[in-house]
Amino acid sequence: MAAKRDTYTPDSLLTVAARVFNERGYDGTSMEHLSQAAGISKSSIYHHVRGKEELLRRAISRALDELFAVLEEPTAREGRAVDRLEYVVRRTVDVLVAELPYVTLLLRVRGNTDTERWAMRRRREFDQRVAELLRRAAEEGDLRRDLDERLATRLLFGMINSIVEWYRPGHGDRVDGGQLADAVVLTAFAGLRR
Amino acid sequence: MAAKRDTYTPDSLLTVAARVFNERGYDGTSMEHLSQAAGISKSSIYHHVRGKEELLRRAISRALDELFAVLEEPTAREGRAVDRLEYVVRRTVDVLVAELPYVTLLLRVRGNTDTERWAMRRRREFDQRVAELLRRAAEEGDLRRDLDERLATRLLFGMINSIVEWYRPGHGDRVDGGQLADAVVLTAFAGLRR
Repeated sequence: MAAKRDTYTPDSLLTVAARVFNERGYDGTSMEHLSQAAGISKSSIYHHVRGKEELLRRAISRALDELFAVLEEPTAREGRAVDRLEYVVRRTVDVLVAELPYVTLLLRVRGNTDTERWAMRRRREFDQRVAELLRRAAEEGDLRRDLDERLATRLLFGMINSIVEWYRPGHGDRVDGGQLADAVVLTAFAGLRR
Repeated sequence: MAAKRDTYTPDSLLTVAARVFNERGYDGTSMEHLSQAAGISKSSIYHHVRGKEELLRRAISRALDELFAVLEEPTAREGRAVDRLEYVVRRTVDVLVAELPYVTLLLRVRGNTDTERWAMRRRREFDQRVAELLRRAAEEGDLRRDLDERLATRLLFGMINSIVEWYRPGHGDRVDGGQLADAVVLTAFAGLRR
């Protein structure tokens, strides 16, 4: 694997790190594991990053940046809250599918390190932005009244976040990201909309 | 804590074991951890069980027995499949809330031991029984046609199973099990039913 050394970039290292973190758990991954999986020496890794926590932070940032960018898209910012909410849910599923290993990492952090606690805060912030949309949609009279908003937000994210645990594109999963987003929107919004 | 020794029963040991397994992860739990948490000696634990894998099996059995029992209840066996499905979903949430630590353990097993692989097989069996109900409900024309059944089953379980990750009754969670079951049924069935 030594031949790979020169072609290694921070990006390909990140891809390997995200895979290994998801397979072994972040706590269970050593720099030695990363070095073996990437086929480069530990000192080569230290040339790119200070350590495994920096790799975790970069990997999780990639997921968070994409998720927060969704909230800034024009369709997420204009119009009735229920339509903005539906758009955000659909695009969240898109990001989840496009950035599967990175979003999986984000959803599995346990809070043992500063980076993990930062990730959990940012994730809660995202959830709160979506909960806020749900609240506005309720105020605008577009959501059913017999469903607690906090509960609805949690069930909605429960459904969406579960996708990382079973969706394996290219390994026999015959649905693509678009079908997945459709299914989530159909299931959730037929239930939530009045 | 030595005074507790005589009052220990297999049941209270199971309660402690389930809590510690969930806190530390099964792999990360030693007999020493269990002994400390229960406040009894390791040899006292060995008086009740052969080792931690037997405790895992008993804890998971408790969840599985309750879940499979739901499928044998009269309302789960008679009538239109869509109504049986709705009943099973509601009762599954009931069991999840009533047996929270045990169902949490069941949902988190990773397949590293024989007991975990057995648990995963039994869990898949349960999921397949529910998927079968969903399929029959579709055949009977009671489910929307634009939703893939396999996908719908996964999203439904994704929503239900996520509950173990955030529902903490008695720690500020103001919803009770019944409200939770209502919310799941409302969210899922408004979306699934035609």
